[in-house]
Amino acid sequence: MIDKSSFHIVLIGAGNLATHLGKALCARGFRVGQVYSRTYESAASLAEMLSASPLTAVDELPTDADLYIVSLTDAAFVQLLPRLTAGREDRLFVHTAGSIPLSVWQGHGHRYGVFYPMQTFSKRRDVNFEEIPLFIEANNDEDLQLLSELGGELSHNVRQLSSEQRKILHLAAVFACNFTNHMYTLANKLLAANGISFDAMLPLIDETARKVHQLPPAEAQTGPAVRYDHNVIAKHLDLLTDMPDVRALYQEISKSIHKESTNE
Amino acid sequence: MIDKSSFHIVLIGAGNLATHLGKALCARGFRVGQVYSRTYESAASLAEMLSASPLTAVDELPTDADLYIVSLTDAAFVQLLPRLTAGREDRLFVHTAGSIPLSVWQGHGHRYGVFYPMQTFSKRRDVNFEEIPLFIEANNDEDLQLLSELGGELSHNVRQLSSEQRKILHLAAVFACNFTNHMYTLANKLLAANGISFDAMLPLIDETARKVHQLPPAEAQTGPAVRYDHNVIAKHLDLLTDMPDVRALYQEISKSIHKESTNE
Repeated sequence: MIDKSSFHIVLIGAGNLATHLGKALCARGFRVGQVYSRTYESAASLAEMLSASPLTAVDELPTDADLYIVSLTDAAFVQLLPRLTAGREDRLFVHTAGSIPLSVWQGHGHRYGVFYPMQTFSKRRDVNFEEIPLFIEANNDEDLQLLSELGGELSHNVRQLSSEQRKILHLAAVFACNFTNHMYTLANKLLAANGISFDAMLPLIDETARKVHQLPPAEAQTGPAVRYDHNVIAKHLDLLTDMPDVRALYQEISKSIHKESTNE
Repeated sequence: MIDKSSFHIVLIGAGNLATHLGKALCARGFRVGQVYSRTYESAASLAEMLSASPLTAVDELPTDADLYIVSLTDAAFVQLLPRLTAGREDRLFVHTAGSIPLSVWQGHGHRYGVFYPMQTFSKRRDVNFEEIPLFIEANNDEDLQLLSELGGELSHNVRQLSSEQRKILHLAAVFACNFTNHMYTLANKLLAANGISFDAMLPLIDETARKVHQLPPAEAQTGPAVRYDHNVIAKHLDLLTDMPDVRALYQEISKSIHKESTNE
């Protein structure tokens, strides 16, 4: 069992994911000692929330922490990686990125893993961390066990997943979350331009999400594109004349829906 | 007030919307006398649920009903329209299509309207009709009042909306519901091909929907496309090499997300 009072965690990164993860750790009684970010403001802002010390220099990171959680953009991570592990080769490092394989750590230290909470994090919105699926991986059984315990403290949905499967999961999440949200954005744009409140969409958005708890999404599909209803689609394309990019997207997604529905 | 015991409703169409609307009407004590569909099976199946009579010939529709609710595909509706109203010019007709203007009825009878429940209906899934936004319109005040009363019996969210605004609403609904669901379908396709259960996506899907109750969708947007993270996007495109259509969609939607985020 992890002794929370002595277990020393360092957060590297202060973005949305690091913020929500740090808050969840503290709420569960874990101690975050330091928060690193390239900008002092970001480091200080999150460090204050977590009663931790802000750092902006990699050299000042402690060498004796129990766990370093790296939550940076992919590009920043790859660039910083050698300096993070140098002098800390026997320490446990994890990253939180769905898209980065475990093997990124090879040649950098001896103990490493992945701790990927699959959720959409925005600073202005609180999330219930317990419901977030956490996907873990490690290069040794002992640390896998540790990550499993730590994960279990934060979420009731912790699973071990290979890097190969996780990268598919991350890609699928881009469709199910990021692209979905963009469909909401485009709907909102159309409504706002015509003086209609986005609130009118919420019951539909909620039901669309709830529906796939019960039906496979291909079966839940409705709307003019399923049977490629030329009448309705032509009217919609007319309405989008002034938004050529959105019009092109409408056409491509409609074709894709029709294609999937005829494949079934 | 509508006298439910004598108010005589005819349903023309037996698809998903007609089915859910018919069931909601019966559940609220309304009487559906007849159900028309081009195929006997469809008419009989819905008529049985509603204790109504099935019809497959337009000529056999009663001429003295209080309300004819037309819920057909746009193409079938336009084709059938003159025969529906012939000999029933003084009766109230409404259609349920978001995309069809009130003016479609002009020259066909004297009393007409629109009764558009904005929701995604599948036969295998029950919906709570009370939560469904109902958008109504009529060519005279008396019938508008009647539709408002009828709507109020079914839903606590009844609004009057012009045909112009309704067609925008319908287009926005295609984005927020149909296109969103297709993003779920594509996610599911990727997961299924790699032996990962779609269930893993549900917490993310739910949070993505819940989030826009609090934040405008453009502000809720996360993921690699917001800052156009070339590293992550290139990896995702690699994973989609064998699905060129989905790959093209990924690119176009990512560009659109990036464009919207830089416009803000």
